[in-house]
Amino acid sequence: MKRKSDKPIKVTEVCLRDGSHVMAHQYTEEQVRKVTRALDDAGMHYIEVSHGDGLGGSTLQYGRSLIDEMKLIEAAVEECKQATVAVLLLPGIGTVHDLKQARQLGAGLVRVATHVTEADVSAQHISVARELGMETLGFLMMAHMAPVEKLVEQAKLMESYGAQAVYVTDSAGALLPDQVRERISALRNSLDIEVGFHGHNNLSVAVANTLVAIEEGATRIDGSIRCLGAGAGNTQTEVLLAVLDRMGIDVGIDLYKTMDVAENIVGPMLPRPQEINKGSLVLGYAGVYSSFLLHAERASERFGLDPRDILIELGKRNVVGGQEDMILDVAAELARAQKVEA
Amino acid sequence: MKRKSDKPIKVTEVCLRDGSHVMAHQYTEEQVRKVTRALDDAGMHYIEVSHGDGLGGSTLQYGRSLIDEMKLIEAAVEECKQATVAVLLLPGIGTVHDLKQARQLGAGLVRVATHVTEADVSAQHISVARELGMETLGFLMMAHMAPVEKLVEQAKLMESYGAQAVYVTDSAGALLPDQVRERISALRNSLDIEVGFHGHNNLSVAVANTLVAIEEGATRIDGSIRCLGAGAGNTQTEVLLAVLDRMGIDVGIDLYKTMDVAENIVGPMLPRPQEINKGSLVLGYAGVYSSFLLHAERASERFGLDPRDILIELGKRNVVGGQEDMILDVAAELARAQKVEA
Repeated sequence: MKRKSDKPIKVTEVCLRDGSHVMAHQYTEEQVRKVTRALDDAGMHYIEVSHGDGLGGSTLQYGRSLIDEMKLIEAAVEECKQATVAVLLLPGIGTVHDLKQARQLGAGLVRVATHVTEADVSAQHISVARELGMETLGFLMMAHMAPVEKLVEQAKLMESYGAQAVYVTDSAGALLPDQVRERISALRNSLDIEVGFHGHNNLSVAVANTLVAIEEGATRIDGSIRCLGAGAGNTQTEVLLAVLDRMGIDVGIDLYKTMDVAENIVGPMLPRPQEINKGSLVLGYAGVYSSFLLHAERASERFGLDPRDILIELGKRNVVGGQEDMILDVAAELARAQKVEA
Repeated sequence: MKRKSDKPIKVTEVCLRDGSHVMAHQYTEEQVRKVTRALDDAGMHYIEVSHGDGLGGSTLQYGRSLIDEMKLIEAAVEECKQATVAVLLLPGIGTVHDLKQARQLGAGLVRVATHVTEADVSAQHISVARELGMETLGFLMMAHMAPVEKLVEQAKLMESYGAQAVYVTDSAGALLPDQVRERISALRNSLDIEVGFHGHNNLSVAVANTLVAIEEGATRIDGSIRCLGAGAGNTQTEVLLAVLDRMGIDVGIDLYKTMDVAENIVGPMLPRPQEINKGSLVLGYAGVYSSFLLHAERASERFGLDPRDILIELGKRNVVGGQEDMILDVAAELARAQKVEA
């Protein structure tokens, strides 16, 4: 592979943050310490520790954490000899106060995350993070939901606020390799800062998408040990490292040690295997929020529909998180349309 | 995606053959009937039914089947309204007699499989299969172990014997997308017959490899529902169909029905999840036979080595199935070398 950037690739491990969804946010301090210690020893660059929905996510709505995330961040920082502890912040869920506290505890990097069309809500948090002296990256979620020009426009906003890199975040695992290529390439041509990629494996192309992103010049890459993450999980870190090694791309992380973390530490923690099943596949295929699945299943029973038809229609209409009340309307409409057809 | 062939894509479902490895060859007749009936109803083109190691594989060495595979083939044929039942035959394991029996029971297609450098042992079986009026395809296994020119030479041999298509068979899940592209492209440029691809997911790129193969003009594609197959499993059929559908490539198989087979029929049969764990990952990374794993683990204990080092060395030396006795020699040599270094 010929990379279009000669900067080193920096990997962020997200099993302690995105993986928190799978763990129903029940990570113990001991688990966080064990995983962090072993990953730090393997040479991992960044280890993200937060509630699955970022700082402040521990609520009734998003799921309460077993342990206050600040305690987990503190524990992770204590375990790191060389790695940087990263946190995720979604403005509206996490606050400036949360960010300051995480910084005080030793978090060195923050990813400020917004829906792909709502970068403007990240201005304040990005600016505060920079003032706090943190590495500050922008995270454009559900990146498949905006045309490339819109994505570029939003990334430029984040750059203007002070972000030092912007991620194409494929939250729904809905992007295909050619779409990743187009998006990374467009950002690389339009921004002066680094570009990153965060993939999910709902369509079984997370590793392939990540390779394409790296080829196109992305230098900030996310992975999750054993795929531990929302939906079908993320780009599997140890597999990605093996593939990059096979391609002669050295990221400076020990492959065997990372495989050992996967087998001996994270593997035994898995509450369920990270397979691509009907639920995760249809989320990637339809390109919708995972929270829609349950709503669609309920609506399908009420209207005698296939929940997949509802999810695909929601995807077509670009319905976003927070608009769950539209699901019943869409289902009712679909039911009427199918009746007319029949 | 722009395909380099305008011929229709034909999918062969291998969960009842490659998946037999995962099931320790304990498929019941009722399971085979249920899976076949549902896949036939979904419009699947070919359904392969055989012992994991092909006709005649039910032995002490390869693992005894619960039910005589001829009974399973007969049952599958009875359940098919439109699909063709396929069988796998490895010369040396399966015989001409087995092939004739399978044909008599209604199998319509055979894949005659050899190691990538041993196509010459397929001549007789290919010729008999053609005489029997079966669709007859060649299957070049461990395709990553030969340089492209050798692969082409061996495929041309199979073509000369009468094969109507030749597969690049990535048995170890060791090929990366660019390597698949190179191989499929070379075969397409050198053969007059169709080209196929059979992928394994040890490096998490089975779907991506299959997409590349299709782009380069492969028209015979293998998949396995829920990844049920050796190593980390195969290209996941229902995911591949969803991705092809998203790309506007119609293969004439019902996506929802295939997803339902995965969720309601094959899912509950899985004895273990088809994850990429340390074992399957290192097999793909080293590019060696899955049967080597246990031998390498034993040798590693005896010589105080990491089994991964042994497997990688075996891969480098192109050690093949049947040469398991070399594993101890290689381990002893490695142990001496590591001692000198230390």
